[in-house]
Amino acid sequence: MSLAALIIGNEVLSAKVTEANGALLIRRCREVGVPVVSVHLVPDDIDAIVEALQLAKRRARWVITSGGVGPTHDDVTVRAVALALGRPVVRLPEMIDLMRAAYEGQEPPAAAMRLTEAPEGSTLLRDEALRYPVLVCEGVHMLPGVPELFALQLEVLLRGLEGTPVTLRTLYLHASESDIAAVLDVVALSRPDVAIGSYPTFDPTHDYRVKLTVEHRDAAQVAQVIERLTRELPAGSILRQGDR
Amino acid sequence: MSLAALIIGNEVLSAKVTEANGALLIRRCREVGVPVVSVHLVPDDIDAIVEALQLAKRRARWVITSGGVGPTHDDVTVRAVALALGRPVVRLPEMIDLMRAAYEGQEPPAAAMRLTEAPEGSTLLRDEALRYPVLVCEGVHMLPGVPELFALQLEVLLRGLEGTPVTLRTLYLHASESDIAAVLDVVALSRPDVAIGSYPTFDPTHDYRVKLTVEHRDAAQVAQVIERLTRELPAGSILRQGDR
Repeated sequence: MSLAALIIGNEVLSAKVTEANGALLIRRCREVGVPVVSVHLVPDDIDAIVEALQLAKRRARWVITSGGVGPTHDDVTVRAVALALGRPVVRLPEMIDLMRAAYEGQEPPAAAMRLTEAPEGSTLLRDEALRYPVLVCEGVHMLPGVPELFALQLEVLLRGLEGTPVTLRTLYLHASESDIAAVLDVVALSRPDVAIGSYPTFDPTHDYRVKLTVEHRDAAQVAQVIERLTRELPAGSILRQGDR
Repeated sequence: MSLAALIIGNEVLSAKVTEANGALLIRRCREVGVPVVSVHLVPDDIDAIVEALQLAKRRARWVITSGGVGPTHDDVTVRAVALALGRPVVRLPEMIDLMRAAYEGQEPPAAAMRLTEAPEGSTLLRDEALRYPVLVCEGVHMLPGVPELFALQLEVLLRGLEGTPVTLRTLYLHASESDIAAVLDVVALSRPDVAIGSYPTFDPTHDYRVKLTVEHRDAAQVAQVIERLTRELPAGSILRQGDR
C-alpha cells in the first residue's frame, strides 16, 4: 500500500523554483496514512525519468509523477512513462473530446492536442473538482507540476487510496546517541514492526539532545514500546514525552 | 561534473521533519555552478539506499548522501554504501584516533566506535571548520543529516569541486503555452546545448501566463537565444525580461 513520487523538472534541480509538491505529498500522505517510500527529483530527461520510474515501481505499489505534462518541448513525462512501461503513446478519445470542448468546437492547435497523449491503456480519474482528469497507467499517476493543479489532483487520487493513519509518540532525552544506542539496538531488533527513530540535535536552543520517535498503526503497540524504553533507557535520561 | 544527492531518513518521508538539506544543496550547487541531476529521498533501509545509490552513480560523477551516519540502529548509510560499492566495512585508523581524542584518552563506548566505520578504501576530507572530516569513497560523500553539520561539510566539499556558474535570463509572456509551443520546439531543437524552460502559471495575482527561462554557462549564447525568441515568438506576447 506504499507510494513513491517522481518530481520532474529542471527548474526544481536548478533552484529556479523551490520544490513544494513533494513536501505537500509527504504531508498529505502522512495525514491519510499512506506510506511514502521514495521522493525523487529528476530533470526533464527521458532516460533519467525512465530509470527513476522503473526503480519507483519496484519499490511502491503506486507512483505519482509531478510535472512535464504540458505542451512544450520540455514536457516529456508521458513519453518517458510510456517507454518505461513498454507501451506506445496514443491520443485518448476522452481527452480529445475534453480538449475540443475547451476550444468550443474549433479544432484545437496541434500543441494543445499534445495534452491528449497518454501511454496506451491509460485510464482517467474524473472528479467534478477537476477541469482535466488524473491520467493513470499501471498505477502511475501523471500529475501536472503547477502547484495549484497538483494539489487538486492529489486530493482526488488520495481519496481512492486506503490508508491507515499512524500513531506517533516521542521521547525527548538529555543523553547522547552513543549513551542510548545499546538499548535502542535491543528494542528495535526485538520489535522490527515498530518504527523507532533517533534524531540528535546540536541546536543550543533545544533543551534536549536526542528525540526518539515510536510509530505503528496500532496505538497499543506504540504504548508498549514507549513503556519498555522508559524502563530500559539510562536512569534520568528522559526529559519529557510528546505526541508529535 | 554533475552531482546527485541521496537524502536518507524515515523522518523526512513521514513528514516528521521538513526536509531542508536537499534544498540547501540545490541552492548552493547552483551558486557555485555544479549541476545537480538528482535528489532522492529514501528511507533508512539498506536495500533502498543501495538501489538509489547505484542509480545515482550511473547518473552523476559525484554523490552526496545526507543522514544515517550516527551510532544508532537506524543509521545504515555506511553499510549500504559499502554494499553498493562491493567493499567491506572497516574501522578507519584516523577516525579511531579522532574518537579517542574526543574521549580524552578513555576508551570510547562501542556505540561511539561505530562512527569510525567506513567502506574500505574511504578517504577523509579534512578542514579546520570541521570537528569530524567528510567521509568519501569512490566519489560518494557521506554527510550527517543534522542540518548544522550537513551545511558545514557541504561547504567544505563544494570548495573541492570546480563549477562554472550559469547565466539565466527570463521572458515573461502573456501567451499560453499552446500558442508558443511551436516556436519553442524549433528553437530548443536547434540549440540543444542551451537549456530552455517553459513554466505556466495559473496564479491570478501574476501579470504573466508563462515564464520562459534560458540558461547556459556562456552569457553570449543566452543572449543569442533570447534575441531569437524575441524575434520569433508571436508579436506582442513578451511582457518583460528578467535575469532570474
